Amino acid sequence: MSRQYICMDTIRFLMGKVHPIAPLFTYDRYADFSEDEVDLLLGAAKDLADQHYFPHFKSMDEHGVVYDNGEVTTPPELGDIIRATAEGGWIGGTDKPENGGMNLPEMIFGTAQLIFQAANNSAQGYVGLTTGSARLITSFGSQELIDTYVPKMYAGQWQGTMALTEPQAGSSLSDIVTSATPVGQDGSYHIKGQKIFISAGQHQHSENFVHLTLARIDGAPAGTKGISLFVVPKFLPSPDGSLTYNHVFCAGDYQKMGQRGYATTHLVFGEDQPTVGFLVGEPNKGLRYMFQMMNEARIAVGQTAAGVASGAYYASLQYAKERPQGRALEQKKNLGSEQTLIINHPDVRRMLFTQKAVVEGSFSLAMECLKLSDLIHAAPESEKEDHFLLLDLLTPIMKTYPAEMGQKSVSMGLQVLGGYGFTMDFDLQQYYRDIRIMAIYEGTTGIQSLDLLGRKMTIKNGKAAQLLMAAVQRTIHEASTYDELKPQAQQLGKALERMGGVVQHLMPYAMRGELTTFLADATLFMEMAGHVVIGWQWLKMALQAKQDQLSGNDQFADAFYESKVQTMQFFFRYELPKTVGLHRTLTADSLPLTIGQVESALI
Amino acid sequence: MSRQYICMDTIRFLMGKVHPIAPLFTYDRYADFSEDEVDLLLGAAKDLADQHYFPHFKSMDEHGVVYDNGEVTTPPELGDIIRATAEGGWIGGTDKPENGGMNLPEMIFGTAQLIFQAANNSAQGYVGLTTGSARLITSFGSQELIDTYVPKMYAGQWQGTMALTEPQAGSSLSDIVTSATPVGQDGSYHIKGQKIFISAGQHQHSENFVHLTLARIDGAPAGTKGISLFVVPKFLPSPDGSLTYNHVFCAGDYQKMGQRGYATTHLVFGEDQPTVGFLVGEPNKGLRYMFQMMNEARIAVGQTAAGVASGAYYASLQYAKERPQGRALEQKKNLGSEQTLIINHPDVRRMLFTQKAVVEGSFSLAMECLKLSDLIHAAPESEKEDHFLLLDLLTPIMKTYPAEMGQKSVSMGLQVLGGYGFTMDFDLQQYYRDIRIMAIYEGTTGIQSLDLLGRKMTIKNGKAAQLLMAAVQRTIHEASTYDELKPQAQQLGKALERMGGVVQHLMPYAMRGELTTFLADATLFMEMAGHVVIGWQWLKMALQAKQDQLSGNDQFADAFYESKVQTMQFFFRYELPKTVGLHRTLTADSLPLTIGQVESALI
Repeated sequence: MSRQYICMDTIRFLMGKVHPIAPLFTYDRYADFSEDEVDLLLGAAKDLADQHYFPHFKSMDEHGVVYDNGEVTTPPELGDIIRATAEGGWIGGTDKPENGGMNLPEMIFGTAQLIFQAANNSAQGYVGLTTGSARLITSFGSQELIDTYVPKMYAGQWQGTMALTEPQAGSSLSDIVTSATPVGQDGSYHIKGQKIFISAGQHQHSENFVHLTLARIDGAPAGTKGISLFVVPKFLPSPDGSLTYNHVFCAGDYQKMGQRGYATTHLVFGEDQPTVGFLVGEPNKGLRYMFQMMNEARIAVGQTAAGVASGAYYASLQYAKERPQGRALEQKKNLGSEQTLIINHPDVRRMLFTQKAVVEGSFSLAMECLKLSDLIHAAPESEKEDHFLLLDLLTPIMKTYPAEMGQKSVSMGLQVLGGYGFTMDFDLQQYYRDIRIMAIYEGTTGIQSLDLLGRKMTIKNGKAAQLLMAAVQRTIHEASTYDELKPQAQQLGKALERMGGVVQHLMPYAMRGELTTFLADATLFMEMAGHVVIGWQWLKMALQAKQDQLSGNDQFADAFYESKVQTMQFFFRYELPKTVGLHRTLTADSLPLTIGQVESALI
Repeated sequence: MSRQYICMDTIRFLMGKVHPIAPLFTYDRYADFSEDEVDLLLGAAKDLADQHYFPHFKSMDEHGVVYDNGEVTTPPELGDIIRATAEGGWIGGTDKPENGGMNLPEMIFGTAQLIFQAANNSAQGYVGLTTGSARLITSFGSQELIDTYVPKMYAGQWQGTMALTEPQAGSSLSDIVTSATPVGQDGSYHIKGQKIFISAGQHQHSENFVHLTLARIDGAPAGTKGISLFVVPKFLPSPDGSLTYNHVFCAGDYQKMGQRGYATTHLVFGEDQPTVGFLVGEPNKGLRYMFQMMNEARIAVGQTAAGVASGAYYASLQYAKERPQGRALEQKKNLGSEQTLIINHPDVRRMLFTQKAVVEGSFSLAMECLKLSDLIHAAPESEKEDHFLLLDLLTPIMKTYPAEMGQKSVSMGLQVLGGYGFTMDFDLQQYYRDIRIMAIYEGTTGIQSLDLLGRKMTIKNGKAAQLLMAAVQRTIHEASTYDELKPQAQQLGKALERMGGVVQHLMPYAMRGELTTFLADATLFMEMAGHVVIGWQWLKMALQAKQDQLSGNDQFADAFYESKVQTMQFFFRYELPKTVGLHRTLTADSLPLTIGQVESALI
């Protein structure tokens, strides 16, 4: 059980240096924390992951999820994992103390989640969902809802979920039809409808389930403006602590290719008997509220992909350092010589470097996002909008780059093991199956890409985009003062220009209202933006490594710093040039071939 | 069971027009065939696939393979599939009539295999291996070996395998240690050793197993020059038809992520009692012989990847044409409007077009390779070398492009289905799991890439490469005479130049014997060459479509021809530009980062 699945030094480097957490402690909200405490907390999270998460990574997959007549049996070890996580404060940690939290910065809490995700992504899903749904209640719900539900959720006794998707609507939330009929004046409603793909919607390790459910109040406007948010418990709690069945029936569990220990349920509300739900906040603002949780969830999904890719990287790295096979090409004829370790083959190294570049680049972007979340909470009012806009722009990228590139990264990890990687005896195949869902959860890559190009790039007259450009330029400028980093600083500048060129090429379509043309290739724009943003993160890391080394303020080994600089060089040589081809495709003269009367071509 | 998994019109177009089979019938060897007969044979293969292969595609995965004490239980339906395939003549078809074959052209036989592969890739593996190993015996074995083994193999009663890989050697065949000790003067040997990853090495549907086994005769030279080829049956046949156990023990079956109905065994030869094997051909020439089968197997693996990607394409295409969700972006506010089919979303179309481009581009390259195989057999001696060299160059590309791009293609198919694609209720997840092994079987992508750049590009002073360049230039020249094809013809010319530029950049390292540097990024060169070669195939297809339409010799519908031209345009806009970024990476000034003292950077 001692195999590495995450590099804690890289976490410390990112949190301590590249995206320093210390300035947060100058704000009132986080004044009680110190860097020493950060170390203790991260150490505690890592211990928890070592003891409770990672040992069950494989067994949870093998056990899977079994559905039988409304009941769902998940792996038995999950109960302990949830309890230990709650005891460590890792479900409610970021909330206010009066709600049962510790006011933990997102940087610490989100990083702990990343450690759990790297150790056992299915298990982390259960607790992460409870965190997100409880925070939704404390953000927008009444004090009564908070008092009734949140303490049990933070204690790990009640499971939270988000119930959005419906069979006929899928990603098109404006088409949801689950209905809410007012029962009295107390904010209670009868909820009737079906929700599918509800993660953690039923299992044997929770006394109750608190479904944060989107529904339409009778007579509400059509579309997204008529959607409200409800707390719908499986069991209605009474003041004496007793629970009464609320007719939320689990009609099935979807058997999946990956995340096989993670229940994915089909829920039926109010089919034969009424199901009672409680309105959160005001009517018809449900989607806006839900987006708090959804934005957090999008970052969490991207983090999970990065965590899975991290686990896969270390599994393949270990194999490459232990497995002898073949010889250097110059030694091929020297048949008496020993076989070499496969890490000495350039092709294997290329695959390992790619994995490292994707994993740590994604980690760094995650830390950037977590820090922005904290600044939104803690910084002076006058600065908040900028932090909010930049995070808003980075969120779809943070969701998508790790999800898409993580798949390629894990696939390379599997390839390092050759035929063994395809067998159930090794973990790579599980990482490969698990990570595939990350590009689908919480809005597919296509939807994230429409969000990035169609909304975030143009929001407030392009202010979010300008903030990103300025931040990247600052890094380029700083890096240019080091001879060793100058070539890559220039290269990133050119990639940024190419990205700007694409926006200029596409904007006239947006101006003319030709939205389909404007956004037809949004996914390619996303790929380009992801590579630029991760290039920025790598330049930041290499810059910090140089500064640490030159200043003598070098808490890590030389090899650690060198590995950051070399991986940065690798990214700029092997990954960033992809933006050149993408630029060609995205700025082609003719209209994209995917619009117009081409359906008949798809035969 | 009626879902489409392959487009027979595309097959007919490729075989009838793009790579016309008719000229083959002018050669003596194939003089007995006619185009009418081709239609009948392809129809028979499709019927067989419809009736026996495709109906069990999913059930074979669900059943899986069970090992118990030397015995292996594969899906029960496999027995019927093998028998029906043998009865149709689809195991021995290409062999000479005196060996039990029909002298079938590879173009027909290989295309039938492609149909089976698209319908049920695991099932086709069993029969394909018997074909390859029997042909190895008829090519290089004694008449006695042929008479004893081949008829039973072609009849589907005895299973053939290729037994190369050993635990300590993996891809490094020069390190195999299985030993062969002469027993008498009759070519029989005692074989002792272990072989792993032996596909179809044991199952309940075969009376006997004929393992084409690589081993080292006592005292043979080290390395690949000391490897001999043996027929090692599980049961020794007597003239009276009885079978005696030959102590080939199946020690296990590898449980795999995909191809779960395909047995992958661990075999032990001569552990407690002697196992007898029979030398094929001359001593120490085993690897050369085996390469006949391996080259065929490499093309077959590429074909299988293309077939799997074809099945996935039609599964996702059907879904996209039936599933309503969302609206055109211009209609988003029109909430009363019906939801549109998802095929109308540009992002979904892009994914479908990519799949079609990968699938049909790979089919066309497969047909090119099959035709070259036939010409090597049938053409006048003076022309054979050119055909051989070109096929030799294309083989690693035919293996690799469908295996690598097929993964991306199938992944896009899964993405089209969104969350449903990740569930076991749909076939996409199975295609996704199945196809992953194709980049590993019969030499990984890394090994194919070393073969392409290190051997095939330089063979006979670059003659194979010159033949390819000339063939591509011919297509460019012809296509340039059509205004509509001119832009892509020019684009392909430039991509070809870029490829030449990379070779020029790298060749000095080869000249100086710096092989590690020369070949460090061979896999990227492979990616580039694959895109150029598939671009060539698409230009060929579009050219043929134009010529058919203009000449009035248009046996297919206009929509069919238009779909070929539009998919060609798609490939050139969305796929070929990737070669621009690859060119930058491959011609960078500095040495690749994957060589030298960088192992410490991989932490």
